[in-house]
Amino acid sequence: MSEHGYNQRKRKRSEEELKKLSNRLCRIEGQVRGLREMLQKDVYCTDILTQVSAVNAALNSFSRELLSEHLRTCVAERIRQGDDEVIDELMSVLQKLMK
Amino acid sequence: MSEHGYNQRKRKRSEEELKKLSNRLCRIEGQVRGLREMLQKDVYCTDILTQVSAVNAALNSFSRELLSEHLRTCVAERIRQGDDEVIDELMSVLQKLMK
Amino acid sequence: MSEHGYNQRKRKRSEEELKKLSNRLCRIEGQVRGLREMLQKDVYCTDILTQVSAVNAALNSFSRELLSEHLRTCVAERIRQGDDEVIDELMSVLQKLMK
Amino acid sequence: MSEHGYNQRKRKRSEEELKKLSNRLCRIEGQVRGLREMLQKDVYCTDILTQVSAVNAALNSFSRELLSEHLRTCVAERIRQGDDEVIDELMSVLQKLMK
Repeated sequence: MSEHGYNQRKRKRSEEELKKLSNRLCRIEGQVRGLREMLQKDVYCTDILTQVSAVNAALNSFSRELLSEHLRTCVAERIRQGDDEVIDELMSVLQKLMK
Repeated sequence: MSEHGYNQRKRKRSEEELKKLSNRLCRIEGQVRGLREMLQKDVYCTDILTQVSAVNAALNSFSRELLSEHLRTCVAERIRQGDDEVIDELMSVLQKLMK
Repeated sequence: MSEHGYNQRKRKRSEEELKKLSNRLCRIEGQVRGLREMLQKDVYCTDILTQVSAVNAALNSFSRELLSEHLRTCVAERIRQGDDEVIDELMSVLQKLMK
Repeated sequence: MSEHGYNQRKRKRSEEELKKLSNRLCRIEGQVRGLREMLQKDVYCTDILTQVSAVNAALNSFSRELLSEHLRTCVAERIRQGDDEVIDELMSVLQKLMK
């Protein structure tokens, strides 16, 4: 673990992948900002909650995209190199995402 | 439905409630921005995914807070006034949140 | 709390409601038994996992049905009687179901 | 796809693994039967819903156990054999489980 609370392993992403993932996060950031504006405008509770479920769905899509890239690259490569520790790490993060 | 995609019913919140809910959303916005920075810094996939699950948990806390206020005020009041349509609206939003 | 781990409050359901809810549970029991048979027949992991997600969906439908009845009867009645403790109980169970 | 709705790929499990997984499913079956008895005994809605969330948690534990075995055996082996189609199948089932 580094001082930033995550280990030092890195993962270089392609320009294209980086752009696609960043764009998704920008949209999610905008959706969260939108929730704050809804609060300011006294929007009705159930309308805000419906929008929260849309943000959750967008976050899940981002997770799936990142997870899919992770499986296709890091996981496949490390398994081919005989480093099966990658599976423990994967299960540990899936446990958090499947809750 | 208004032009903004949600109906015109309003809900005036107290200063204190508004502040508490807005603060939660500010923190979530910061967490999403943090995810974007993690991507830029080539942080490893599972570390980003772990952080995504933290954002999901924070969004769920926000939902529960808002839902709790909604039950205690709008739902209770409208049921007392004999307006049971509030229950259909509630079930419809819970269905989205329980998915 | 009773010796059975739940409190003594009761809820009389109509014949029709009882039948509808029991039928759903019978089907879910059959699905779980089906999972066990899949294991015995050496069915491939992802096919079993797909079926598990179907059982989860069926359980969620049962929850929503029961929750909807609960809101329309117990919750509405107790709120009309001024017993707002029903809302705390509801939030506590929703917290478990929204995880 | 076979006439039973799942493809013919098989997965031989060890006696020990089979027993562990079957035992979990037996307990879940018992829990679902218990839900039906709670209905018959007019148990209060929120007590039943709390028990439903326990069944959901047990099903998730079963999924994780099976998924973990799947990753350690089928997925690792097929990746080593160069059969990356296993990753598409995995993502497709994770998508269902992460909903």
